[in-house]
Amino acid sequence: MLQSALEAARAGAATGGIPIGSALFIDGRLVATGHNRRVQDASVIHHAEMNCLENAGRLPAADYARATLVTTLSPCDMCTGAALLYGIPRVIVGENRTFVGGEDLLRSRGVEVTVLDDPECVELMTAFIAAHPALWAEDIGEDESDRP
Amino acid sequence: MLQSALEAARAGAATGGIPIGSALFIDGRLVATGHNRRVQDASVIHHAEMNCLENAGRLPAADYARATLVTTLSPCDMCTGAALLYGIPRVIVGENRTFVGGEDLLRSRGVEVTVLDDPECVELMTAFIAAHPALWAEDIGEDESDRP
Repeated sequence: MLQSALEAARAGAATGGIPIGSALFIDGRLVATGHNRRVQDASVIHHAEMNCLENAGRLPAADYARATLVTTLSPCDMCTGAALLYGIPRVIVGENRTFVGGEDLLRSRGVEVTVLDDPECVELMTAFIAAHPALWAEDIGEDESDRP
Repeated sequence: MLQSALEAARAGAATGGIPIGSALFIDGRLVATGHNRRVQDASVIHHAEMNCLENAGRLPAADYARATLVTTLSPCDMCTGAALLYGIPRVIVGENRTFVGGEDLLRSRGVEVTVLDDPECVELMTAFIAAHPALWAEDIGEDESDRP
């Protein structure tokens, strides 16, 4: 399932964006993918997971209850909150070496979180952060000057 | 400041939407407003607060650090997470009688949360929920049949 999210991340990178991708599966079937659109749409809410959920459209609670949200990077507070809002029971994370989001909060609310530590996900983010530190800081709500 | 959020809520209701509005202030100056757009745009991520943040556009962390996010209704997990992501230090809530979101999480992360218990906000939501229980359940990730 990570491959669908990785393809979305690469597609985001190919259009000059932040290389984070996401995919939503219900009963093992791919429903939607999405990627970060901060650069492409000047969006502050279309992180990969949010864009994926938006692309999936309006779904009944019973569908979310059978869903798995896959993301190439550990979900930030916003994306964590979206998964909680919709009661998505499983989140698969490509990697959390370059950023750790709300994994503990997800687990505390009963969400099954699996971290794959995928080398390609790590490489995508490592290269991006090195090349665009200010953009990355902006995307996670930080001031670049505060970063080590 | 609540009046700006209330006007946005009324504007959302006037176009057939869920009557929740939000406003973002920086240094006491109104930067943006927004309202829930589930009905208007078939959006699952444009809750009022999210729509407001999106309308405010890309801002540096230093701007969010001086901001106040106003919402007519207690913020759900997703909107709570968005406020945390961007480090918004103050959230003003019109009412939390009809729904209680992530107020405790916000406070635990150092956000100042003020609940106004405004009668018009309560009336807007009470009337809406009575008229559209399934739509409301969908917006907060619930199954209507599970509601009391």
